[in-house]
Amino acid sequence: MAKRKQLRSSIAWSTADQIGVYGYDLCQDLIGKVTLGNMAFLEITGRLPQPNESKMFEAIAVTLVEHGINPSSLAARLTYDGAPEALQAAVAAGLLGLGNVFVGSTETAAKMLWSALQDQPETAPLEPIAQRIVQHYMESKTIIPGIGHPKHKPLDPRAVRLMALAREYGYAGRYVQLMEMITLVGEKAYNRPLPMNATGAIGCICCELGFPMSVVRGVGVMARAVGLVGHILEESRSPLGFEIYQRTEDEAATDIVGKLRSDR
Amino acid sequence: MAKRKQLRSSIAWSTADQIGVYGYDLCQDLIGKVTLGNMAFLEITGRLPQPNESKMFEAIAVTLVEHGINPSSLAARLTYDGAPEALQAAVAAGLLGLGNVFVGSTETAAKMLWSALQDQPETAPLEPIAQRIVQHYMESKTIIPGIGHPKHKPLDPRAVRLMALAREYGYAGRYVQLMEMITLVGEKAYNRPLPMNATGAIGCICCELGFPMSVVRGVGVMARAVGLVGHILEESRSPLGFEIYQRTEDEAATDIVGKLRSDR
Amino acid sequence: MAKRKQLRSSIAWSTADQIGVYGYDLCQDLIGKVTLGNMAFLEITGRLPQPNESKMFEAIAVTLVEHGINPSSLAARLTYDGAPEALQAAVAAGLLGLGNVFVGSTETAAKMLWSALQDQPETAPLEPIAQRIVQHYMESKTIIPGIGHPKHKPLDPRAVRLMALAREYGYAGRYVQLMEMITLVGEKAYNRPLPMNATGAIGCICCELGFPMSVVRGVGVMARAVGLVGHILEESRSPLGFEIYQRTEDEAATDIVGKLRSDR
Amino acid sequence: MAKRKQLRSSIAWSTADQIGVYGYDLCQDLIGKVTLGNMAFLEITGRLPQPNESKMFEAIAVTLVEHGINPSSLAARLTYDGAPEALQAAVAAGLLGLGNVFVGSTETAAKMLWSALQDQPETAPLEPIAQRIVQHYMESKTIIPGIGHPKHKPLDPRAVRLMALAREYGYAGRYVQLMEMITLVGEKAYNRPLPMNATGAIGCICCELGFPMSVVRGVGVMARAVGLVGHILEESRSPLGFEIYQRTEDEAATDIVGKLRSDR
Repeated sequence: MAKRKQLRSSIAWSTADQIGVYGYDLCQDLIGKVTLGNMAFLEITGRLPQPNESKMFEAIAVTLVEHGINPSSLAARLTYDGAPEALQAAVAAGLLGLGNVFVGSTETAAKMLWSALQDQPETAPLEPIAQRIVQHYMESKTIIPGIGHPKHKPLDPRAVRLMALAREYGYAGRYVQLMEMITLVGEKAYNRPLPMNATGAIGCICCELGFPMSVVRGVGVMARAVGLVGHILEESRSPLGFEIYQRTEDEAATDIVGKLRSDR
Repeated sequence: MAKRKQLRSSIAWSTADQIGVYGYDLCQDLIGKVTLGNMAFLEITGRLPQPNESKMFEAIAVTLVEHGINPSSLAARLTYDGAPEALQAAVAAGLLGLGNVFVGSTETAAKMLWSALQDQPETAPLEPIAQRIVQHYMESKTIIPGIGHPKHKPLDPRAVRLMALAREYGYAGRYVQLMEMITLVGEKAYNRPLPMNATGAIGCICCELGFPMSVVRGVGVMARAVGLVGHILEESRSPLGFEIYQRTEDEAATDIVGKLRSDR
Repeated sequence: MAKRKQLRSSIAWSTADQIGVYGYDLCQDLIGKVTLGNMAFLEITGRLPQPNESKMFEAIAVTLVEHGINPSSLAARLTYDGAPEALQAAVAAGLLGLGNVFVGSTETAAKMLWSALQDQPETAPLEPIAQRIVQHYMESKTIIPGIGHPKHKPLDPRAVRLMALAREYGYAGRYVQLMEMITLVGEKAYNRPLPMNATGAIGCICCELGFPMSVVRGVGVMARAVGLVGHILEESRSPLGFEIYQRTEDEAATDIVGKLRSDR
Repeated sequence: MAKRKQLRSSIAWSTADQIGVYGYDLCQDLIGKVTLGNMAFLEITGRLPQPNESKMFEAIAVTLVEHGINPSSLAARLTYDGAPEALQAAVAAGLLGLGNVFVGSTETAAKMLWSALQDQPETAPLEPIAQRIVQHYMESKTIIPGIGHPKHKPLDPRAVRLMALAREYGYAGRYVQLMEMITLVGEKAYNRPLPMNATGAIGCICCELGFPMSVVRGVGVMARAVGLVGHILEESRSPLGFEIYQRTEDEAATDIVGKLRSDR
């Protein structure tokens, strides 16, 4: 076996009496000193957050933890029903659906904002940029990332709260402003309530925090892992899975039960 | 489709302008008010933690976030290399290995302590209990959960730190004391350093916090989801996966390459 | 990095113009010569099957492929709805629930049979062994693996068919006979229809085929991966997931909607 | 809970004494009559294959089962080492990496061919189409799907074998011919050996079989699930995981061990 390339990871090391994590002493600098949210910030950026970064990050992470019964928490519960020996597998099953349609949509919103501003001077007015974006999505008949919600209207209370905190903590920069402008322009263009949703709020805040685009989805994934444990615990005490699958099986097969192909 | 049983979940609900999570108003009581670690405590217990509960829980969660290169983080990295379109799948792959051997071992330690004390009066002396436990494992020739570490000896610095914090925060109750006693008795019985390890420390603290046994493993799973995002981010910038699999493939097949069955 | 142990795998190798798999030349001996089912047998045993082994194995694999709407196929569908970019993740989510309760139960049945006969002489009468097994489960108030079915009674047509094939192919040995005897004894003991189910039939046939106990569950896992692709394809054309989660969300939260804790 | 939409699945149903799968009677038409590969074809197309379809499909499925040590089989093995209680989770972990880079690449090749021919008359000459495709990838500096292999050159023996079988079974239609033409044109354009690889061969054969593009990746996923069980079985007997992670941990942390941030 020829070694072709040196393997390197700069995340962690351990000796007999010490453990280093991103350059911090795990036992002296982190355990008992920082929060789980701070550790998450450290994993994403390689450093501990400043006080307002910490507050802003905890706020978006808290927003993402729990969304009640949804496809992700249902998949986790159904998996736990079949394999109670492996709680980790039920959490994993719940995470697997956090893709382009659900939690991954924060990434889509963040990328839209990041792309729109990356080649623009700091002083470029935001309204024309927002108009170009809205027009682009209207023409391609696709949904504008980060605005609109089937239930939360005329406002999504999570986005309202997060925008207020972004102002309070000093993160209402150009990404936040552009997201707000897209909301205004989008509502006018479609002439109906299209409030900034949690996805949009978190997307623009992730941009303000300077997070790599490839990891925006990861914020939702880590936060939701927390929430899934709660759902699995409830499933272990008060299961939904069997009832759901039996109802579904009965209803879904009604038209075909007892029927076989004529050409078999 | 007959409804056989009412479906009930008491975790969350939402209306047009409000979202409830475990009886709290998500936007007013949680976002901007509590940490991700507090949310995790809420998911496990159904209520927000008291100040010392919060500190104790953040400490164990922080301990569990990051363990550098290990089977779990390698599985996540190798998965990301093949499927970079789905970061959530790479995190999930990393979680899937947190079973009986690794992170699940906190559950084993917690269950050992919980079983040992569940039928005992509050004043039962701990030394004979510890001796019975140690003897049981010696006789069945299995490892005593929560003590011993291949690298961290004579002490595991994480356990040292967590025990100090447990004393400081008021969680050095009978589960903590029993784990410490098992360590003492075990080291004497085996006549070699078998320090309480992180698994043992977290196991007894989870008992002190009153967590359900079925969810102890979940604390590690949620914390490690946080750490895996960091590994995937590093893998995207500085990959290890291809080099590892190519070296392994070359080395592992050396003896068989070019050889075929004589009876094929 | 010190090498501590030589890495060895004897499964496969490749050179510029040849690929070896379990000692066969992939391109000359396998592709175009053997079936997917034969490859599965090869993966489990390290050799290609004899004709009757092949038929017996294909029969149990076919039985396990498709079970319609169940917790596993629902988890796969719900995952696909959220992450259509990664079909592999939806299949994986469906597999994760094939644990102790569902497909893993073939392993439980096989282990019951294997344990019961491992120390017995070839001529030991089976009825007393079956009686001891049934009594053991009755006393511990746990379900006897491999018998009974909520819907398929008085007979499970899959087990009927598999037992007929086992006789035809020469696999009605002592494991099959013991499973049949357990069914008889169990029905008499409980005085109600407890037919051998698919799990029991496959469990005893896996024993007859000499499969390692640790891999019995794997037969179901590989077969169900095949079936899950069909469910995901149907979900992509005619989705169930959104309707199911929305109905569940509405129904499950009825009692709590709008209610908040008094002590928050 | 209002029902908004009727749930329908036309895959399977069961009554007390009968089970229907895609319109076939599971026990009478499938178990003991068809192979696992035929079941896979049924899951993808909704009908059993004709004899040559069956042979062609078994050939591509067999090709995809086993690739020795690779990122996917390593992830499965590492997962099993940590969670031996849940074989299903180890298989799932291995499947999760079958994304855009590895097995998903068959989908990329199939889509390239399908897109190229969808608006073309049946008689359109293939060489100019192949030239446009090759030029497109050269200009965008991305790899042409389905050709080239780091180890298998000047020819990939799997593709050679599959092309011979496609001719023998009557599947050497326009998709196969276009893939062959792309190989020729690509090798000339790059002036180096860029043989059709297994991915390209399977991609064009899937097009010939009329498989939906969204499910091409699924053929690899189901086949690889079979192979992963073999790797997990070998890992249970002769583990690689611990050695690999320990070597990696030692090597990767060399530069940072003992070092802490100056600003902590």
